[in-house]
Amino acid sequence: MKVSAKGSDVKDLKLAVEGQDLIDWAAREMPVLTLIRQRFIKDQPLKGLKLAACLHVTSETANLMLTLKAGGADLALCASNPLSTNDAVAAALASQHAIKTYAIRGEDNDTYYEHIDAVLDHHPTMTMDDGADLVSRLHKERKDQLAEVIGGTEETTTGVIRLRAMAKHMFDNRYGTGQSTIDGIIRATNVLLAGKTFVIAGYGWVGRGLASRAKGHGADVVITEVDSVKALEAAMDGFRVMKMDEAAREGDIFVTVTGDVNVLDRKHFDGMKDGVILANSGHFNSEINLKALDEMATGVRQVRPAVQEYKMRDGRRLHVLAEGRLINLAAAEGHPAAVMDMSFANQALCAAYIAANAAKLEKRVYDVPDEIDKEVAQLKLHAMGIAIDTLTAEQERYLNSWEEGT
Amino acid sequence: MKVSAKGSDVKDLKLAVEGQDLIDWAAREMPVLTLIRQRFIKDQPLKGLKLAACLHVTSETANLMLTLKAGGADLALCASNPLSTNDAVAAALASQHAIKTYAIRGEDNDTYYEHIDAVLDHHPTMTMDDGADLVSRLHKERKDQLAEVIGGTEETTTGVIRLRAMAKHMFDNRYGTGQSTIDGIIRATNVLLAGKTFVIAGYGWVGRGLASRAKGHGADVVITEVDSVKALEAAMDGFRVMKMDEAAREGDIFVTVTGDVNVLDRKHFDGMKDGVILANSGHFNSEINLKALDEMATGVRQVRPAVQEYKMRDGRRLHVLAEGRLINLAAAEGHPAAVMDMSFANQALCAAYIAANAAKLEKRVYDVPDEIDKEVAQLKLHAMGIAIDTLTAEQERYLNSWEEGT
Amino acid sequence: MKVSAKGSDVKDLKLAVEGQDLIDWAAREMPVLTLIRQRFIKDQPLKGLKLAACLHVTSETANLMLTLKAGGADLALCASNPLSTNDAVAAALASQHAIKTYAIRGEDNDTYYEHIDAVLDHHPTMTMDDGADLVSRLHKERKDQLAEVIGGTEETTTGVIRLRAMAKHMFDNRYGTGQSTIDGIIRATNVLLAGKTFVIAGYGWVGRGLASRAKGHGADVVITEVDSVKALEAAMDGFRVMKMDEAAREGDIFVTVTGDVNVLDRKHFDGMKDGVILANSGHFNSEINLKALDEMATGVRQVRPAVQEYKMRDGRRLHVLAEGRLINLAAAEGHPAAVMDMSFANQALCAAYIAANAAKLEKRVYDVPDEIDKEVAQLKLHAMGIAIDTLTAEQERYLNSWEEGT
Amino acid sequence: MKVSAKGSDVKDLKLAVEGQDLIDWAAREMPVLTLIRQRFIKDQPLKGLKLAACLHVTSETANLMLTLKAGGADLALCASNPLSTNDAVAAALASQHAIKTYAIRGEDNDTYYEHIDAVLDHHPTMTMDDGADLVSRLHKERKDQLAEVIGGTEETTTGVIRLRAMAKHMFDNRYGTGQSTIDGIIRATNVLLAGKTFVIAGYGWVGRGLASRAKGHGADVVITEVDSVKALEAAMDGFRVMKMDEAAREGDIFVTVTGDVNVLDRKHFDGMKDGVILANSGHFNSEINLKALDEMATGVRQVRPAVQEYKMRDGRRLHVLAEGRLINLAAAEGHPAAVMDMSFANQALCAAYIAANAAKLEKRVYDVPDEIDKEVAQLKLHAMGIAIDTLTAEQERYLNSWEEGT
Repeated sequence: MKVSAKGSDVKDLKLAVEGQDLIDWAAREMPVLTLIRQRFIKDQPLKGLKLAACLHVTSETANLMLTLKAGGADLALCASNPLSTNDAVAAALASQHAIKTYAIRGEDNDTYYEHIDAVLDHHPTMTMDDGADLVSRLHKERKDQLAEVIGGTEETTTGVIRLRAMAKHMFDNRYGTGQSTIDGIIRATNVLLAGKTFVIAGYGWVGRGLASRAKGHGADVVITEVDSVKALEAAMDGFRVMKMDEAAREGDIFVTVTGDVNVLDRKHFDGMKDGVILANSGHFNSEINLKALDEMATGVRQVRPAVQEYKMRDGRRLHVLAEGRLINLAAAEGHPAAVMDMSFANQALCAAYIAANAAKLEKRVYDVPDEIDKEVAQLKLHAMGIAIDTLTAEQERYLNSWEEGT
Repeated sequence: MKVSAKGSDVKDLKLAVEGQDLIDWAAREMPVLTLIRQRFIKDQPLKGLKLAACLHVTSETANLMLTLKAGGADLALCASNPLSTNDAVAAALASQHAIKTYAIRGEDNDTYYEHIDAVLDHHPTMTMDDGADLVSRLHKERKDQLAEVIGGTEETTTGVIRLRAMAKHMFDNRYGTGQSTIDGIIRATNVLLAGKTFVIAGYGWVGRGLASRAKGHGADVVITEVDSVKALEAAMDGFRVMKMDEAAREGDIFVTVTGDVNVLDRKHFDGMKDGVILANSGHFNSEINLKALDEMATGVRQVRPAVQEYKMRDGRRLHVLAEGRLINLAAAEGHPAAVMDMSFANQALCAAYIAANAAKLEKRVYDVPDEIDKEVAQLKLHAMGIAIDTLTAEQERYLNSWEEGT
Repeated sequence: MKVSAKGSDVKDLKLAVEGQDLIDWAAREMPVLTLIRQRFIKDQPLKGLKLAACLHVTSETANLMLTLKAGGADLALCASNPLSTNDAVAAALASQHAIKTYAIRGEDNDTYYEHIDAVLDHHPTMTMDDGADLVSRLHKERKDQLAEVIGGTEETTTGVIRLRAMAKHMFDNRYGTGQSTIDGIIRATNVLLAGKTFVIAGYGWVGRGLASRAKGHGADVVITEVDSVKALEAAMDGFRVMKMDEAAREGDIFVTVTGDVNVLDRKHFDGMKDGVILANSGHFNSEINLKALDEMATGVRQVRPAVQEYKMRDGRRLHVLAEGRLINLAAAEGHPAAVMDMSFANQALCAAYIAANAAKLEKRVYDVPDEIDKEVAQLKLHAMGIAIDTLTAEQERYLNSWEEGT
Repeated sequence: MKVSAKGSDVKDLKLAVEGQDLIDWAAREMPVLTLIRQRFIKDQPLKGLKLAACLHVTSETANLMLTLKAGGADLALCASNPLSTNDAVAAALASQHAIKTYAIRGEDNDTYYEHIDAVLDHHPTMTMDDGADLVSRLHKERKDQLAEVIGGTEETTTGVIRLRAMAKHMFDNRYGTGQSTIDGIIRATNVLLAGKTFVIAGYGWVGRGLASRAKGHGADVVITEVDSVKALEAAMDGFRVMKMDEAAREGDIFVTVTGDVNVLDRKHFDGMKDGVILANSGHFNSEINLKALDEMATGVRQVRPAVQEYKMRDGRRLHVLAEGRLINLAAAEGHPAAVMDMSFANQALCAAYIAANAAKLEKRVYDVPDEIDKEVAQLKLHAMGIAIDTLTAEQERYLNSWEEGT
């Protein structure tokens, strides 16, 4: 790792102007974060905080960084995925905004961890993670630094707030990954979705969003699940539900969004039709058993930039997109800015919340407070030009009473 | 109140054969409850329990009653709504199954409360409620009986389990009320939904289900909300969101599903178009301010069995369906049996759960245990002929570990 | 047949007031026809015409009759289907409007043809048909009257204008039958559509509308077809397409809309699941082979008003709705008034067109002139409060020129 | 123009290997054309024909060229749009398949017409056009060659068969442009469609397909039209319909698909919100009045590769995609191969049809014969693994008879 600019490690600082254009473009679709940034400039809620972030280094993340910096935080940023970095954006952050940035698209495994280490060398008092690589490394390799993290306690999980609320489920997963996964598949293959049998493994929030978008494109959607409640919901939503053993024989396109391992495995590859497309939209590239597929294939070749063709002994061709990494980041541009606006508005407000409540927070995992969700939603509606009703005094009274019913 | 058969009060016992046909028909769409009934006959989990139920007296409720009775319970049943009773079903329960039944379609207010009292006269040790009229009366008028309810404690809430889980939200509200509200509106009016502006007040589970069905019929759906998160979700689902003040001027059909009071009020009636249709699908008939509408109108007349036309001073005609009572019960047949199958399977298993855990339950409100939801869903999938995946040992290990990720 | 009032034959003239309410209710949803009626009163385009109509005798048809009468026509009306007559509407037409009406709900086959004959006894100079029973009888039994029909020619087809245009396909079939078929099935069975496999035989306009509505209710829709272009369109619309042999084994609900015979036949009944529902929404009750089913069954019984259960030797139960007659008329109220508004506005304008152009029309079948379609659509948009763009002079020029393109 | 290889004019012959990979990838999604190619190799239906084609030079068009060549045709190909050429594909056609190819992405206007002339220099006996530039030039500049075109007649329109049938409307426009327009907009902007107001000018086949896809992505779709029948259909499909004057103030994204000129004009730009996106998916770049917009703007700059920002005097920013050229070709990859498969299968069979029937064809425009549509659909269903029903003898008899009805 060479330290290229003010302690950063990025591909090419000359890309900074191009990167700034991308950041500005994203900002137009991030009105909520923009509003929060204006408030942060005034209130300085993160003053004195040393914040380490391990996130996809995209134009939207850049806007979060600028908001956190506006709030007074001292920042260091590394990539949470070797393939998701936009080098121009990284250059703009490093050179134009003097934010310590360690991220190069396509960096090898060693560089990836060197970059995480570089961020930890800044001795953060707060962490921001996407996939837990940063926190995990902190616990395993930097036990001595744990005490530095907010309040000097031993466990860094103090104050960690899970983004399991509205912003995460509704925007990030359902709308964001729903659209961008379809986008990634189409960019990678330019295949027509109408009339295709589209198999989705997993009917969590991402699966639901994806199913809805695939159906909207005229596909015949099939769901596989291991949870009976989710499986039933999929069936009641009009989708066919079956075991993957059976779906493997019917599908034209397969997308895994379970968060689990080897969801598409040897026995499934065996039954698939010639020409199928396999993609993953879960965080880790563990959902498609590529090792098994590689062993089964007589040859592999690149047929389009993000498409690898595995030739099977019986002549069938299986096409794996983006080496099984998350398709929306690897083959498209990840979440649209409007999605990240919600997610990052949430993160920014949570960071301020942790900073303000550090003394009171116990050593456990918290959910995002409801008020933050409601505030973000309210800001977003405002940005969309939508006004909603408020309860009348009579209605408030009614809701607070058991007595007025028939 | 005349006691007509074995202590019951129903319209006409001669309707019993017809009622039994309806109960049998419903049973075909209630495979989950049927399976539980078979188990209950063997296990007798409700043996010795005196159970008072205040529910809509429909063919589906009858199947729940037969299941609870099969489980050993001693039952008394009254109507939870004066308009929702099917007299033939009530007759069959009273005469063919010797279940104490107090319910007559169209009964007046006095009879309604006499029927609740009749049920309480049976000194229940467990209650089953839909809208809280039974529990409410128990607390207000029968304080002395409170101690009799499971375990002899003072508060009857012991052991009450809220059906706030899967079965309630997903089936009852989203799928059930979604379809049956549309059904009720069409039966009442025979109006074409395609091309109509369909305003839904409230985007909770019922509102979501209803919006989806109205959109599926080609309507242009408008949502009003007071909660910013729900309002935003509606907007992201592609629906227009606005204040009711504005929606009132655009809508052709209005349905309230908020659980609140006077959601459609004087100022809204003022701006509505000639010929609009107003319906309520919330539990109580408080959502449309009929008193105000009555005062504003120069005359009211019945134009179809479930349609009242309010003539306004300026000549506009506003059509209120089923006097603002829940449209799906008043103008259609309420939830399809398949919906009640899920809801009642849940209730039956919960009753058994309370009976089994009475000693351990604290004096507070519980949510339905996850296992009951999963079990009901599993039984339902089985009945639908759907098999789903199970986690492999490797997948279980992966999910239980933080370490295997990239 | 007894002639009850002014030469009419209806069930009970005392139902006339109730019938008039239904006619008035329908009129509110028929703004296009209302507008045409106002014009007809002034222009009297049908003056001197003797018009015989063989149509479903519903409240919407009544509004067409009143419009034709307003235009100066001398009318006689009989039912085009023994089960579709609304007796109250028939009474109102006969007594309050002095229109010769021959229709009694549930009339037997002999009465049905007596009624057609009664209408032909009026020596029509124009006919209006729905299913060709009237024209067919005219050709077979009343050859001598053929010359009386507009222009004294031998062939009555002179001036017949097929409603194969917009109004028929778009409104009548797609939107009208789409909604009302779903309505009929739900009224007949109260079954939940979500999660059901819904098989539709035929992907013409009715099949398309029905598929869209069933999908909107959360069903998994399967299409069967004999035409490759339609089959492909169904597949590209995201529906599964297969042979009926295969669909018969998967379906929960089957609806035939092909216009053909024995689309559901012996071999299909053999493979069906227990509890399936069979309905027809094509014009004739020939699509389900009930004769074969009857032979295969060990018994048949009525389980709900419009549901007959066929018990098979192996214990399976097949449920046929409305004896295979068109489900939307037999179990629901037929097309919503808004649909018939379009269809009947078209018929009224076509009648005026024939009257005006009788001399010029050749002896062949015509399609509805485009101008009538556009005029009806324009009137409908106006009634919906929708204004649309008009071409600018520049745009007209552009469209008329080949030269301005790049 | 320099003639680079065997008389062709392409960007760089070294791209040929890459181009061949793209052609092969497209071939996987073009099973129908592949099947026809196999037949053509055997039958040689185009033997002796000199065919001039003016088409988008993409990997799918390459597969059509290979099929026509396999059928015996002597080919020359030029681009039908300066921006749609894939240089690698052009290289592969020119060098690996020795097809005379004249197409360079981004070529200027002079080169564009030089390329058309080069194709005409080959003295075609049959033409294949997309937008009429070739035929138009033939009529204006090469009147002397008109006689050479099939059969030596004066008018080249002899034998031209309009692709107004299934393949064109259903696949090309509805499914193809529907998906690829969405794809182009997302690639150009990475904007989230959910929650956006999406205005579509024109509800022809493209507009319908696009509306369906936009709705499937969670957008609130608004339609503008000048035709009352189409406008009404849009309204009945659940979309809002209004004048562009009004839509201009509400929309977030605008797409024109009318085939007309200045559909988005000065007065519309005036009322638009800050940040709107303007795209065209009609054939010519005449639908957005860029001249007017340029005059109104204080400055224009490129903010993403296919996005130009027009800064208005009042500070609003309007974003025009791909300079108003067809967005699906300019910002994405045009139609998916599966769409072009249908369209080109049709073209190939039509070419054979013209060759076989040249003597019989009159000097007028023909529609594609029904049999070709049915054959293409049948081949496609076969390729999708879908089998459909065939009429039984009894059903054929029934359809051929008027007599068997009730």
